[in-house]
This record gives sequence, C-alpha cells and structure tokens, in this order.
Amino acid sequence: MKFSFKNDYSEGCHPNILQALLSSNYDQQAGYGEDQYSLEAKDLIRQKIKNPQSEIYFVSGGTQANLIVISSVLRPYQCAISASTGHILNNETGAIEATGHKILSVEKEDGKLTPADIIPILESHKNVPHQVMPKLVYISNSTELGTIYTFNELKNLSVFCKENNLYLFMDGARMGHGLTAETSDLNLEQVAELTDIFYLGGTKNGALIGEAIVINNKELKQDFAFNVKQKGALLAKGRLLGIQFLELMKNELYFELAKQANQQAMKMKNAMKERGIQFLADTHTNQIFPVLSNDLIEKLSEKFEFYVWKKVDDKSSAIRLITSWNTSDEPVNEFIKIIKDEL
Amino acid sequence: MKFSFKNDYSEGCHPNILQALLSSNYDQQAGYGEDQYSLEAKDLIRQKIKNPQSEIYFVSGGTQANLIVISSVLRPYQCAISASTGHILNNETGAIEATGHKILSVEKEDGKLTPADIIPILESHKNVPHQVMPKLVYISNSTELGTIYTFNELKNLSVFCKENNLYLFMDGARMGHGLTAETSDLNLEQVAELTDIFYLGGTKNGALIGEAIVINNKELKQDFAFNVKQKGALLAKGRLLGIQFLELMKNELYFELAKQANQQAMKMKNAMKERGIQFLADTHTNQIFPVLSNDLIEKLSEKFEFYVWKKVDDKSSAIRLITSWNTSDEPVNEFIKIIKDEL
Amino acid sequence: MKFSFKNDYSEGCHPNILQALLSSNYDQQAGYGEDQYSLEAKDLIRQKIKNPQSEIYFVSGGTQANLIVISSVLRPYQCAISASTGHILNNETGAIEATGHKILSVEKEDGKLTPADIIPILESHKNVPHQVMPKLVYISNSTELGTIYTFNELKNLSVFCKENNLYLFMDGARMGHGLTAETSDLNLEQVAELTDIFYLGGTKNGALIGEAIVINNKELKQDFAFNVKQKGALLAKGRLLGIQFLELMKNELYFELAKQANQQAMKMKNAMKERGIQFLADTHTNQIFPVLSNDLIEKLSEKFEFYVWKKVDDKSSAIRLITSWNTSDEPVNEFIKIIKDEL
Amino acid sequence: MKFSFKNDYSEGCHPNILQALLSSNYDQQAGYGEDQYSLEAKDLIRQKIKNPQSEIYFVSGGTQANLIVISSVLRPYQCAISASTGHILNNETGAIEATGHKILSVEKEDGKLTPADIIPILESHKNVPHQVMPKLVYISNSTELGTIYTFNELKNLSVFCKENNLYLFMDGARMGHGLTAETSDLNLEQVAELTDIFYLGGTKNGALIGEAIVINNKELKQDFAFNVKQKGALLAKGRLLGIQFLELMKNELYFELAKQANQQAMKMKNAMKERGIQFLADTHTNQIFPVLSNDLIEKLSEKFEFYVWKKVDDKSSAIRLITSWNTSDEPVNEFIKIIKDEL
Repeated sequence: MKFSFKNDYSEGCHPNILQALLSSNYDQQAGYGEDQYSLEAKDLIRQKIKNPQSEIYFVSGGTQANLIVISSVLRPYQCAISASTGHILNNETGAIEATGHKILSVEKEDGKLTPADIIPILESHKNVPHQVMPKLVYISNSTELGTIYTFNELKNLSVFCKENNLYLFMDGARMGHGLTAETSDLNLEQVAELTDIFYLGGTKNGALIGEAIVINNKELKQDFAFNVKQKGALLAKGRLLGIQFLELMKNELYFELAKQANQQAMKMKNAMKERGIQFLADTHTNQIFPVLSNDLIEKLSEKFEFYVWKKVDDKSSAIRLITSWNTSDEPVNEFIKIIKDEL
Repeated sequence: MKFSFKNDYSEGCHPNILQALLSSNYDQQAGYGEDQYSLEAKDLIRQKIKNPQSEIYFVSGGTQANLIVISSVLRPYQCAISASTGHILNNETGAIEATGHKILSVEKEDGKLTPADIIPILESHKNVPHQVMPKLVYISNSTELGTIYTFNELKNLSVFCKENNLYLFMDGARMGHGLTAETSDLNLEQVAELTDIFYLGGTKNGALIGEAIVINNKELKQDFAFNVKQKGALLAKGRLLGIQFLELMKNELYFELAKQANQQAMKMKNAMKERGIQFLADTHTNQIFPVLSNDLIEKLSEKFEFYVWKKVDDKSSAIRLITSWNTSDEPVNEFIKIIKDEL
Repeated sequence: MKFSFKNDYSEGCHPNILQALLSSNYDQQAGYGEDQYSLEAKDLIRQKIKNPQSEIYFVSGGTQANLIVISSVLRPYQCAISASTGHILNNETGAIEATGHKILSVEKEDGKLTPADIIPILESHKNVPHQVMPKLVYISNSTELGTIYTFNELKNLSVFCKENNLYLFMDGARMGHGLTAETSDLNLEQVAELTDIFYLGGTKNGALIGEAIVINNKELKQDFAFNVKQKGALLAKGRLLGIQFLELMKNELYFELAKQANQQAMKMKNAMKERGIQFLADTHTNQIFPVLSNDLIEKLSEKFEFYVWKKVDDKSSAIRLITSWNTSDEPVNEFIKIIKDEL
Repeated sequence: MKFSFKNDYSEGCHPNILQALLSSNYDQQAGYGEDQYSLEAKDLIRQKIKNPQSEIYFVSGGTQANLIVISSVLRPYQCAISASTGHILNNETGAIEATGHKILSVEKEDGKLTPADIIPILESHKNVPHQVMPKLVYISNSTELGTIYTFNELKNLSVFCKENNLYLFMDGARMGHGLTAETSDLNLEQVAELTDIFYLGGTKNGALIGEAIVINNKELKQDFAFNVKQKGALLAKGRLLGIQFLELMKNELYFELAKQANQQAMKMKNAMKERGIQFLADTHTNQIFPVLSNDLIEKLSEKFEFYVWKKVDDKSSAIRLITSWNTSDEPVNEFIKIIKDEL
C-alpha cells in the first residue's frame, strides 16, 4: 500500500476523540446540539476568542458551512466576492448559487483578497438596481493554495469591509494550518475580532467530521439556527460534533495537530528547496506544490500517492503534497530520501 | 439522572461501530465515499435488496436525505404529496420549500397514505399550467406516529403511483423499526421493489449519524451525486458513514437493534394495556402514545423523561415514549412497576 | 358569439388608456420606471393614500406581484399564512415556494382571515428551530370568492399582526371591486394605514396589464427595486404601466370602473335572489356564485359563457359569473330575462 | 428637449400596434395566451421559421425570458456559459443565480462565443461531482456590443454544442437588428435550425413590451408552460402580447423596423468614419461606440442625450449611440452635421 499525500482527510481521527466517543457512549444526552459536550465545546471556543457573546454552530462539512453562512447572511439580491481560487467558486457544485446568490470573483495567483481587489468590483456594480449588490467578502485561511493572511493583511481587509458595509467571512476549513504556519503572526482571537463570521475546520484537522461556525457580528446571529436546520445540517446526535470539538479545543490539541501537519510539509519543502526545486507558490502550511521532472514524479509515484496538479512544460509538472495531523516522520523521511537520491 | 424515553437518538452508537472506528482509524482511504468501507457497505445493501443495479448514497441526516431526494427528483413546477404528519411538512423548517417545491398534504390520523387519499389531490390539480404538478408521494415507515405499512398497503400504493406517473419515496428514518414490528409482513427487498427511492436510517437505529439513500428507479440515478455534493452532504471522510453502515448491515445487526427497541416498547405497551390504559394509536414499533392521568404522568416524571404529547382532557394527557436500540430491561421494568403499583 | 361572464380580463382596456397611449407614443422617456408618466402616477397614488413616504412599483401581473413581495419581505426560514382560498396557494403553480417559502393555510369558507384563524398557527409553530417561522399574513380584498373585509375586520387583523410581529400583505388584484362594494366601509387610505404592503390591481379593472405595489412599512422599502429587477419585472418601457395607472388614478376612474362591474353583478344577483336562487356565498363584488338547476345552466349556456364552479347535488351546480368594467346592460338584462322566463 | 440616443426603448410602439389595440379592444378573448391573436401570431412565427412543431410563449421582457428559459432547461447542478458581456451576467441583478444556477463566463472583447472559448471550460469542469456541469450556451444576436454572428459562426457553435451535449440558447432581444445588419448572412429560419431555443425581442424593436420564446428542441418543450406561469410571466391579458407580435410578424414589419434602426446608425457611423473617427468595435447594427474628443462630446451633449461609455484617454471617450425603429432622418442628419462642422 502506497502512502498517500493526496489530502488531509485520508485517515480517521485523533485517538483522543475516539477515546471520548467510547467513554461518553452510553450517556443519554439532549439532541440537536443541546448536549453537554456541545455546550462545553462552545464555551471553550468562546474563551479562546475572548468573546462570550459569540454564537457557535457545529455542522458536518465545509460546503455545508459555506452555503449556510452565505445564504443566511445575504438578502436575495446580494452577492459574495471571492478570489478565483475560492472553494465556493469551483469546488462546491454551485452550492452557493443553488441558494440563489451570485459569486463575483477576482483572478488571484496567491489565493488572497486585498482591498485593491475589491474596489473595482464595487466601482463596477453601481448600476442600481440592474446589478447584484456586493455584500460579503469570502476569504480562506489558509487558502486553497496553502497561503496565509498576515495580521496586517486581515486588519486592512477588515477595516475596508466595515467602511464599505461588507461582511467579512473566513472559511477556516484549514484554520489551524493557517494560524500555526511558521510565518503566521495571526491568532484566533484576532480572527474573531476582524471577521464577522468564520469557521474552524475539524474534518481536515483530526476530527471525523465537523466545522464550527462562529458568529461574531451580533446582527448575523438572529435566527441563524433556523438556517442550520433548514439546510439539513442540524444533527440529531449533535453530541458527535460536540465531543470532537471539545477534545480538539482542550489543551490546544487543535493547533498542535495543525502545526504537526505544517512541520512535516515544511520538512519536505526545505529538502526540495535545498536541491533547487521550484514551487508554484511559497507556502508555509500543509500544502506544497513542487515542480518536478516527469521522471522524478514517476519515481515518487512508485511509493506515494499524490495529485499531479499542473503541467508546467513538456518535461515537468507541479504536484500537490498534503500532510495531515497524522503524517509521521517515516513517509516524510522516505520521500526526502528519494528526492536526495535522485537529485 | 432520570432515564430518558424522549427519543431514540439520546445515546452514542452500537459498540461494534466504535470498535470498527478504532480498528480502521489509521487506514488511509479515498475521500468522498470512495473508501472501501463505503463500497462494501453499499454492496451489502445491494445484496439485501437483491438489486445489484441500485445506486446508494450515504448522507448524514434525515432532513438532508429528504431535501436531496426531493429536489433531485422533481422539476421546478412539480410537488410532493405527504400525510399531514409527514416529517417534511412540519418538522424541517421548510427545507423542501427552500429547494423550491410545494408539499401538498392530506389530513391523516394514522400517518399513512393510500391511493384514496391521493386521488382527490390529482383531481383538483388539473388546471394546467396554473397549479403545481403532483409528482412524488412521500411516505414514512414506520411513520412519525409509529404506525407501519403492510405489504399489501405498500403494494397498492406502488401500483397506484406507477399508474399515475408518480414517484414513490419512502422516508426510512425508522425503517428498521417499521420492518421488524411484530405486525409487519414487509421486508426490505419488497420495499426496494415497491418504491422508486427510499432511505435506511442509521441515526435513530444505533449509528452516530447516517442515512443510506437507495435509488431503485434507474431514471432517478442520473447525476444524483451532483445534488448530494451541492447540498453540502458529500462528506470528505465518507468513511465515517461507510464504516457505520458496514457494521449495521453485517449479520442483520440493523434489524436486531430495531427489533430490540420495538420489543421494549411493546413490553411497556402491553403492561399498560393490561391495566386498561388507552393509546392514541395502536402502534407496534418503538413509539407509543399512552393516555395517562395527569397524576400518573407526574409520578412517572420523577423517574423518567418523556414528552407530554397532547392534552386529552382536564385530567389526562397522552405522552410519547420512545425506546432505542440501547434501551435495556432495567428502565422498562421500572416503568412497568410504577404503572402496576399505581393502577 | 356568446357573451362571456368567465372573467374580468376578457376585453382590452378602458378607452382613456388607449387614448393616452396614442397621445404619448412618440415622447422619448427614460426607461425602467423613471418616465414622467410613472412618476406622476405614483404621486397620484401617494396623494390618494395620504402617505408621501410610501414607495410604489408597477409590475405586470398578480402572480409576479405576489412572488416579488413575499420573497422580498421574508427571510429564508420564514413563511406566509393564507386562507385556503388564497390565490398564492392553489393558482400560481407554486410561485411562492419556488422562491423558497412555505405557505401555511387555514381552511376558510369565506376566504377571509381573522386573528382567531392565525392564533393556532402561531401556537403550533413554536418548536424553534425545527419549524418555519410564520411572518407574513396574506389576504385578498376582494377575496378570490368575491367577499370583502370591513374596516373593523381589517383593523383587528392589523392590530393582531403588529402585536405578533407579522407583516400584513393585501393582494389587491380586485382592490377596486372590494372597496366599492355596496357593503364596504373601507377605503384605500385605510388600507394603506392598516397594511404593511398591498397592491392595486389594474389587469382586472380596466388596464391592459399592471399592478401597483405600494409599500407603507418603511422597513420593507429598502432595496425593493433589486427584487423587482431580479424577478424579471422591471419593464424597459415602464411607461406602459405608468400611463395606465395615471389614467386609472385620474378622476377616480379606477373606482368607477370597479363600481360599474360590481353593479352589473349585483343586478344579476338581485334578480336571482328574487326568484329564490341560493348562492355559495353572499358576495357584493363582481363575482357571484348562484346555485342553479342543471337544466337552467344548460339554457344559459346557449347564450353565455361562464364556469360551472362546483357540483351541488345531482340536479344542480353552482356557476361563477364575473362582470368587468366593460360589462354593459345588454348582456346583463338578457341574462336576467332568461332567469325570469325560466323560473 | 434633446433627442435621445440612449436606447431603443425610449418611445412607445409602432402605430400599427396601437391601431390593432384600438380595433380589437372590445373583443372578448380567452385569457393566458389562448386568445386568437396570440394563436395567429404563433402560427406566423412558425411559418417564418418553417417549423410547425416549435412551441412559442410570449413573455413581457428579456430578463424574464432569460430566467424562464435557463431555469426551465437546466437541472439544479447544471450551469450556463456566457461571454463576459452577456446580459445575464452583469445586467440582471443575479436573476439566473436566483433560480439556482451558476453562470460561467469567458472574457470576450467582441461579445461572441466560439467553440474555442468553450473547450477550456469543459476541460476544467470534469471533477465530477465537485463542480457544476456546463449544459447551456447563452449567446446574444446582435450582442450587447452590437456585433453579430455569421451563419458559419453560428453553425460551428451549433455543431459543437450538439457534439458536447450542450443546449444552445440565443437571446434575441435585438434579433431583428442582428439579422438585418448589412453584414449579416443569417436568417431567422437558420437561427431556428441551429439553436435549441431562442427568443425574438419586441421591446427594443417597436413593441410596447414582449419577447417571443421559441422552442425548437422538442425535449425542451415539455411542461414549459408551468415555468412561465410559476415565474409570474403568464399574463391574464395575453392578448396584449399576441396583438403586438401579430402586427410585427405581418408583412415583415419586425425586420423592416430593425433595418431602419440599423440604417440610421450606419449613416452616423459612416459619417464619422469618413472624418477618421475610431470605434470601440466595428458594429453593423443599431449600437455604435465612436471614440470622440471630450470637446466634441460636450458639443454633442447640447443637442443629444447618450451614454458616455468608457474613458479612452484624458482627452477622449467612447460614447454609445443607439437608434430605434422610430429614429427619423432629422436627428441623424443634425448629428452628422455637427460632426462635419466640428471636424
């Protein structure tokens, strides 16, 4: 069996979660998120972001989180703005449009939005009422390309959004990876201060399933639960989500797991950089995109699974390597050894 | 801590499932339902219903299953027909309408639809194109009231639907309970033959989460996966659903768990019947609705949690008792003892 | 050619409108409702309702008006309440549900809603967030059955809605007929005071097309124009609607036309009442539902077109007769003559 | 009063239409498009396109036509493809997305789509089921920029669409102008052969309102009427639309009016070309985009209304001039005189 670097959701979950499922299994608990585990997990998140007024909902996946947030926040004629790499744009089978909302996009190589990207959209959408009204800015951290927002970048964007009456929504499917990147100067409390709404991804960071939607802007809290239910996301056994987030939030496990994934990716990145290998982007999280010769790709394919991301020229392509909370030293070292042997 | 008869999703899951999660935890598997557990579980279901051509999707909950099926099957101007007790009608925050479709309902005390219920709807919806077109019949087994369909009832409804160009969709959130009721003469293979599409509920029958949508009618299979993804129901770690259904389908565990729940409910029912207690409906599954004096209800409330369902008169009300796969003899016997002591 | 009493939209439009179309034809005007005719017509309506702050939109038809208003006013999880006779419920091909909203209905023989009808709906929709939230009360005046609201009835309903945080929306496709019924004690200014939003129907009262949506509640005004455009209702040549409403609003023409239609219907009604004929409902507008013997229906059918509305018994049925702004004395007298001759 | 070249819907309608409205006014006709005028008009269109099996619906405007067609043709997970200039993309307030469908766009300077534009979209949308499925190609003729499709261009696109299982939909809001351009070698019969569905615009070509949707592909005909009704587009007085299209289709009036508009635009274009003026695009229909000095623009503004379309440099801008069926020689000659005097 080859080791897979295809994604960060190939394995089950962190053993603490399994242990908690075992030990809690026969407790009778209220349904629909009113169980004690969910309540405690939400309290832990509120403590971490130092916002006791925030409202939190656990849902099962990222597309679900995105469509619930966006359809809840926007009025029918309002739209979202996303970088061209945004998950909502190309990877969710039109889930946002299916709720009635257009997404306007900006071509971005690094996957990140700045005020300068958004200004032309606002400028070109002033023909009231013949055009959609831009109202929500969708960003991801880490992005779909593995890049991250710095504190200043997020701060600037946040100020800009407030000035322009736009909501700022951060897709945090890989929030842990973004915040624990060695080059990140941003923390979760700041994310909560600077965005109107965001979510913490569990699925890609050691949970079986689960994303925690955190609503900071109080005007977005009203009746949010109705939307969660209406979109089929309110699990009868909400305990399954509560138990997982409770474990992840305890003792910083969430951030440790992401850091571990990042570090393993960086080891491979550094080893390749030393050998002169180029990358599609200079990323510091658990996704790396080295450009390798087709021969080397073939060689690596004998031992590893990964996606060939993009043809670069006739002799080389970029591949995508993703590490997870569970990627141990063994496959990483083996990968590095092949790189060193071959180059 | 009082024992709760409030619902059948108060506990975690059957220990076999936890064991399987543990033993599979570090396997690397493909995402989005392409993992080996999901594939095997689907095969087992296909074997049980003796339809190797059926297409199966695992999703996380019942509302999600309902909205995906109905929005996938219907064209924009078509509608569903449901009994007035239907879960989709009153208990899903308008999830079906949110996908654009009306539900026409028929007032039914027993929660079951017959051709005679549907004929007037067809008759009164012939003013083309000024009215919605009835196209899908939604039924539940067991129903929201705990009643069940017999083979002949389902057969008649199925024939009627085919004759009238209607799809027949069975919500099987409590399919196990329906099919293992002592008065049931229906089996899963017959359900698959007589319906166009149905689902097998896991959440209320020993799983942590999960419903298995089974598409029998081949014209409904096309592109169904797109709808699953678009509605946010395609879990990255589909293995979580596959592992659970694999365990439930092995060795008839699914049916054993439901039977166990039914039997515990029947024990309580019989004990109450012996004491002359009346019921809102004569049910044979894991939901019972005895009519008790308010004094007795108060007495029982000291030891048990349950819903007071409906005021009957000034001195008595119906309560709802639900048992689960995990309801042991102890609370059941204690409940019966109180009944016997008091009456 | 038989004279038709089938509906009130069989003919073209009042000659004043044709004259105005002719005389304005070559004026160049701004598009999308910014033409001078639309602006003047809106001013006239504002004067009539004595609310200079109201916002007015002209759209082309009643279903369009209903779906724009309801989808604009409601959030995704909110629903409308309607009498079982409501046009939005059975006669618009699910237009409201297609915008994502459920309609809850109350069985009403007279087509009118009272607070007592709505209270049970509010009582039975408190299981937050598992059910839709009732938020808008939809009424019609005159109703789909030709009945009308009195001032007190509307006042009570209005007070009740405010107390219960519900919007009150009046479908005025036949507003003229409702307000000019001989038994009506309600006027347009009062309608504007007592409802949050309503519309004045032109199509059934002498216009070629057109309904004027009037928004009284200021919180419903925001960004309404976007919804009008998004639903395809913002006509490039908005002048067509403006010119018509300008003519209808001048010199009370709108009310005169409706009164004329009502009077012709009442003549037939009174003649039949004198002969002992029963009616499905005691209406005072331009729709009447006499119960006639099948023989008499056949006799009348030789000279007139009308709908047979409902079988009453083996020997008799109710028919529906509708008069319009253009129904002259001749067909009315001929109809009355046959009645008198035959009975 | 300045003469306006702002658009082609500034005036009322062709006098033949007014005359027909007058002469038909007191005829009683069936509602909802079953009137004799609509039936005759549909027959005339079928004759012109030599397809007696085509199905035709009259609706009131272009946005309405676009949203009805696209939402009727596509399944929930399918999307439309449009040039970046497409009216549906930027000028309809998200009307298409509001029905649940994404639009993928291709940056095009001339507003026209070719197979080469579409291939990369198909190539990049193969990650089933994680992406929307491209299914309908939306084109306009003449385009939003005034350019046109030649027979060969449309033929190639049509063949490509068939090969790739895509529907081809032509927005013909300015179909008359497109087909009567001096450089056009395409006729209406060919349009009907080469597209699955298209519409003939009346609003911008001499009607008060109205677009005629023509369905050529028989698989798209089924139940289309339900969608027309559901979207609020089925006018009670369908006669208003029927009468107009009957007049426009008689004696080629539709094409004469468009030709007239084109010719007046070409006169201005040629006069400006003679003076060395450049144009944003080399168009041959009723929209022209000359690049003029700011001084000249100011001069022209004293006599005419038009849109300044795009700043070209500090000293000059492109303006948009649109002529209509009713643009006479007088303003055209006056415009040309100023050009000649000034340059």
